[in-house]
Amino acid sequence: MGLYKELNITIGKGKHGKRNLITDVPGVTVGHVTVQDGPAHTGVTVIKPHGGNMFRDKVIAASAVINGFGKTMGLVQVEELGTIETPIVMTNTLSIGTASTALIKYMMQQNDDIGTTAGTVNPLVCECNDGNLNDIRGLYVTEDHVFEALNNTSEDFEEGAVGAGTGMCCLSFKGGIGSSSRVIELDGKEYTIGALVLSNFGNHCSLRVDGAKEGERIQKIRNAEEKEDKGSIIMLIATDVPLNERQLKRVCRRAGVGLARTGTYYGNGSGDIAIAFTTANRIPQDRKTAVIDTKMLVDSAIDPVFEMTADAVEEAILSSLVHAKTTTGRTGTVHSLMEYLGK
Amino acid sequence: MGLYKELNITIGKGKHGKRNLITDVPGVTVGHVTVQDGPAHTGVTVIKPHGGNMFRDKVIAASAVINGFGKTMGLVQVEELGTIETPIVMTNTLSIGTASTALIKYMMQQNDDIGTTAGTVNPLVCECNDGNLNDIRGLYVTEDHVFEALNNTSEDFEEGAVGAGTGMCCLSFKGGIGSSSRVIELDGKEYTIGALVLSNFGNHCSLRVDGAKEGERIQKIRNAEEKEDKGSIIMLIATDVPLNERQLKRVCRRAGVGLARTGTYYGNGSGDIAIAFTTANRIPQDRKTAVIDTKMLVDSAIDPVFEMTADAVEEAILSSLVHAKTTTGRTGTVHSLMEYLGK
Amino acid sequence: MGLYKELNITIGKGKHGKRNLITDVPGVTVGHVTVQDGPAHTGVTVIKPHGGNMFRDKVIAASAVINGFGKTMGLVQVEELGTIETPIVMTNTLSIGTASTALIKYMMQQNDDIGTTAGTVNPLVCECNDGNLNDIRGLYVTEDHVFEALNNTSEDFEEGAVGAGTGMCCLSFKGGIGSSSRVIELDGKEYTIGALVLSNFGNHCSLRVDGAKEGERIQKIRNAEEKEDKGSIIMLIATDVPLNERQLKRVCRRAGVGLARTGTYYGNGSGDIAIAFTTANRIPQDRKTAVIDTKMLVDSAIDPVFEMTADAVEEAILSSLVHAKTTTGRTGTVHSLMEYLGK
Amino acid sequence: MGLYKELNITIGKGKHGKRNLITDVPGVTVGHVTVQDGPAHTGVTVIKPHGGNMFRDKVIAASAVINGFGKTMGLVQVEELGTIETPIVMTNTLSIGTASTALIKYMMQQNDDIGTTAGTVNPLVCECNDGNLNDIRGLYVTEDHVFEALNNTSEDFEEGAVGAGTGMCCLSFKGGIGSSSRVIELDGKEYTIGALVLSNFGNHCSLRVDGAKEGERIQKIRNAEEKEDKGSIIMLIATDVPLNERQLKRVCRRAGVGLARTGTYYGNGSGDIAIAFTTANRIPQDRKTAVIDTKMLVDSAIDPVFEMTADAVEEAILSSLVHAKTTTGRTGTVHSLMEYLGK
Repeated sequence: MGLYKELNITIGKGKHGKRNLITDVPGVTVGHVTVQDGPAHTGVTVIKPHGGNMFRDKVIAASAVINGFGKTMGLVQVEELGTIETPIVMTNTLSIGTASTALIKYMMQQNDDIGTTAGTVNPLVCECNDGNLNDIRGLYVTEDHVFEALNNTSEDFEEGAVGAGTGMCCLSFKGGIGSSSRVIELDGKEYTIGALVLSNFGNHCSLRVDGAKEGERIQKIRNAEEKEDKGSIIMLIATDVPLNERQLKRVCRRAGVGLARTGTYYGNGSGDIAIAFTTANRIPQDRKTAVIDTKMLVDSAIDPVFEMTADAVEEAILSSLVHAKTTTGRTGTVHSLMEYLGK
Repeated sequence: MGLYKELNITIGKGKHGKRNLITDVPGVTVGHVTVQDGPAHTGVTVIKPHGGNMFRDKVIAASAVINGFGKTMGLVQVEELGTIETPIVMTNTLSIGTASTALIKYMMQQNDDIGTTAGTVNPLVCECNDGNLNDIRGLYVTEDHVFEALNNTSEDFEEGAVGAGTGMCCLSFKGGIGSSSRVIELDGKEYTIGALVLSNFGNHCSLRVDGAKEGERIQKIRNAEEKEDKGSIIMLIATDVPLNERQLKRVCRRAGVGLARTGTYYGNGSGDIAIAFTTANRIPQDRKTAVIDTKMLVDSAIDPVFEMTADAVEEAILSSLVHAKTTTGRTGTVHSLMEYLGK
Repeated sequence: MGLYKELNITIGKGKHGKRNLITDVPGVTVGHVTVQDGPAHTGVTVIKPHGGNMFRDKVIAASAVINGFGKTMGLVQVEELGTIETPIVMTNTLSIGTASTALIKYMMQQNDDIGTTAGTVNPLVCECNDGNLNDIRGLYVTEDHVFEALNNTSEDFEEGAVGAGTGMCCLSFKGGIGSSSRVIELDGKEYTIGALVLSNFGNHCSLRVDGAKEGERIQKIRNAEEKEDKGSIIMLIATDVPLNERQLKRVCRRAGVGLARTGTYYGNGSGDIAIAFTTANRIPQDRKTAVIDTKMLVDSAIDPVFEMTADAVEEAILSSLVHAKTTTGRTGTVHSLMEYLGK
Repeated sequence: MGLYKELNITIGKGKHGKRNLITDVPGVTVGHVTVQDGPAHTGVTVIKPHGGNMFRDKVIAASAVINGFGKTMGLVQVEELGTIETPIVMTNTLSIGTASTALIKYMMQQNDDIGTTAGTVNPLVCECNDGNLNDIRGLYVTEDHVFEALNNTSEDFEEGAVGAGTGMCCLSFKGGIGSSSRVIELDGKEYTIGALVLSNFGNHCSLRVDGAKEGERIQKIRNAEEKEDKGSIIMLIATDVPLNERQLKRVCRRAGVGLARTGTYYGNGSGDIAIAFTTANRIPQDRKTAVIDTKMLVDSAIDPVFEMTADAVEEAILSSLVHAKTTTGRTGTVHSLMEYLGK
């Protein structure tokens, strides 16, 4: 149950979903491929907003660039059309080309009108630089790895140094994949907000755990000088609350709140990107009518969504640290936060 | 019937609404107060998206800043919340303070919870600089003028050198208020797109009438050197097509197409602002449920809306020129385009 | 010396300027007029980026809308041209019209070409809703108040429930004006970053003081139920570091970090606006050449500016709470944080 | 000499550069690889802002998304940091993954600190969908093609159905690569503005040639029904005028003016992207000082840059049509505009 189980810490006042994972949002699945072999400490993580054909049945989405020293591809179209039409793939920075080609091929296999009668497809590929531990110049991620991750997603998935998170570092600890969820009630009905992060950001000693300056404390008990991090974070938010694109962009900005609370000031060298989607409203590729029925939360009722997003993102980041095992790679060993907690 | 009647020109391939005015969109009304007395050549124009209480029953809206050398107020909140909650007031640049105070008072009269239990209200006030003809430093617009315009809107209204358009100049001709509309069919149902502009932009000789370089032609038959314009344009788009905020922003950008076709390159000194709203989806101030039902046009069906917006804005600009009478003011006489057409 | 003196708390690792106020940035001055009379608990605060004629000698600036439920006017042009050309005026939400008219008159007095040969002027007026304590519907701020504040700025100024901060509430405590500064070294030269906030945001019990959950702690010792806040915050950042508009926008986003750390998730009803300017590069109204010499910090050296901005904004918010005295107004009494600290 | 030579048409009142190509901006070079073999009608075009190592010596840049139904990658970082640090690669939509991997490898060959001590690199790859003529699902562009284009750029280059333009269609004619330039004088010194487009946009019959409705005229003399285009356009602007990022974004928006004048309303399905850079100010990867000297055009002198940008883009689009030869591909034959002009 994410952070909750390991540390007995819950961020904020909200209620977790069943797994305390992004997959508590019905339909969402996650898959990893870890590429760890010799100098390779990298991988691929895939998030599917739903189990159907994403190109035919698009989800409404938006993004916010908290700090744009990053190479995420696909955001131009997400912003213009307000939709995501592929699974979301995360990998290391220099492998986005390979990942996007694989994702395009995957979508073409499912949809033979892509590139002929239906226009093209917008691959959504996110990245962080795992070059600290991974020999990123080696370009070890292959199209097969991406296909494997695309073909093996499920509701249960690992957190920590796995998939795209294999080689990531965060706040001078081992980072990677973290996730959390919250459940809220609107009009007497239960809705879920889930966050999944690929954490790779942050400066030395600045970690805060639910407000407490753990980074400073831990630094005092460490012998060795740690390397400066130059990182990034991808923050994905999934929900089944009926929101529109403008509202999802507002939600994305609250990911920045959760991020700020963990101790970063959004450093210059960081690609801090938030992407949010809702499964509640779908846009069909093959429309029957020009006008469709949608649902929308009134903004005066949106505060619980904002609060739970900030909390879930903060908890997902901490969860990535809690679950990531100590790893030795290109420039040395990056230790797990768990080695220092409680000491 | 706007431009159509005067010049027998129709821009584009679309069909006009009944009046060829923004008020062809059901519920929309327009009111003018002209302030023309001695050195004063200015005024106020008001557009009401519907006849009810705008604060309680907000319309969905968006804006696009084509060029931001302008002082329009209220756009921060329009962008964040995607709604307009007051009538839209247009006046000269230095009178926006007076106009906003009057609009706030008008809204407080209608809603005694503003400033007490309901938060405040976001006055939407647009402006152009009529200082070429008007003694704009004189601040001749009063709160009473604004109230008068607010209290006297109707479906029929004048175009040309009237209301906020009284002192405006455009492409070296007399400018002001212009309007046009288009009717389209979606799913077998008729919808209307209306444009209203306050035209005050543009460089000497660059006027194009439906592509033809009329500005250059006319310059050859004019004796006097005309003054350089430093202007702006406000472009309001109303529709009953069910669009969301992202889509209305896309519509606003097409106002820039109509504008470009009339001969401007969006000069540095111009405040070129587009605001679009739809009457099809309303956001209640006093919500009964957190989630409401809305309708939305699928983007793959949006091209007719884009095309008709560009055409209606282009025609509205030309209509403002066609209807504006020659006016003498602070720095001399600005002639009507009608004095040169057909010569 | 701001927060430092009162609480012996310094946010972050940086060094304060001499006064720990925004006026540590050379040339910056601040002036207040407090309007407190019967039901009126409001006022005006003015920040002057430099002591000269702002219209003739503009400062480079940018803004970031952290959450846009606000009515700040002037941002359209700040974003397009990257300059501020008037003092910055802060007041209550419904008085922005009055404030902008007064500011326009003030600028016209100094510049007789405004509205004639030089185009118009872009008044920059920021606001928060002080309706909780102030009878905001009474519109008690007059043009004279604004002139008085404009004519009485200095390097020393009060913080707390003063000027525009008179009636503001923040995180369920009395809010208002707060300020802080930081000094950094670049290329062996000292530069200053100053923050001034008008604090009026936040939810009940969520206050954090340097990470500690003081809001929750204090709630336990309070007897009465406090009212929900629906607020806003204006965050002004001044510096003499040579930055350009893009970089100043990046700086503005770090104001959001300091804000998030104090315990808010940027609530729906909040107008959270950051504006940053540098005094290091000036844009002349009356240029001698088309191309001018400027200086610019390389982005790879910008992290200290980001870090100090986040820290100064966080400290300025806390300083506003520390300095604001308990105030009784329209809906009751709002208590100073100082009544609860150390208890 | 571009359009000038072929049609004896010059758009606007400005003066061409020597070649009437983007390479009139000193240092800019362009290279093509055409991939035309069986079902393949595609290719790669590369623009180098200068002849040095782009990663070590970055150019200042900005972009504008006129309509975002496109997959251009790299814009997130261009917007955040205001720099371009690689050559710009253009190809077909589904080959952007391959192109970005090749571009990353090319940059790694030149810079062995990428991925180790210097962070990663931001590949800038633009695309249009050539699926009408090209078997785009075949993914015929290889990394070798990209390298070949990167290694063979020069000041002289072909326009029309060449390189990335091989399979493009525009306004129902054969489209592709077009270019134009303008020379202006500022402070007595000559500066150049160059445009290069990859044209692939537009609706049937809407072509305008310098205002004249050629599309409608030609449609009357054509026998066959033409297919509807669903396209895009990439518009690159190069200059040696000293502009900053905010100003370059303003310049990008004027590309939208030139585009609108050719007859499009920015259709829903179009990815209309403008990217502008200046060679006048450089940002070093390996800085010696934190603060550097820069130059900047004052915005009150920027109108000639805006006007010439709009004109150069309009002329570049027309030039792409004039130079593109009739091509037969996947769905039939797309005819050159030249077959119809003068008839």
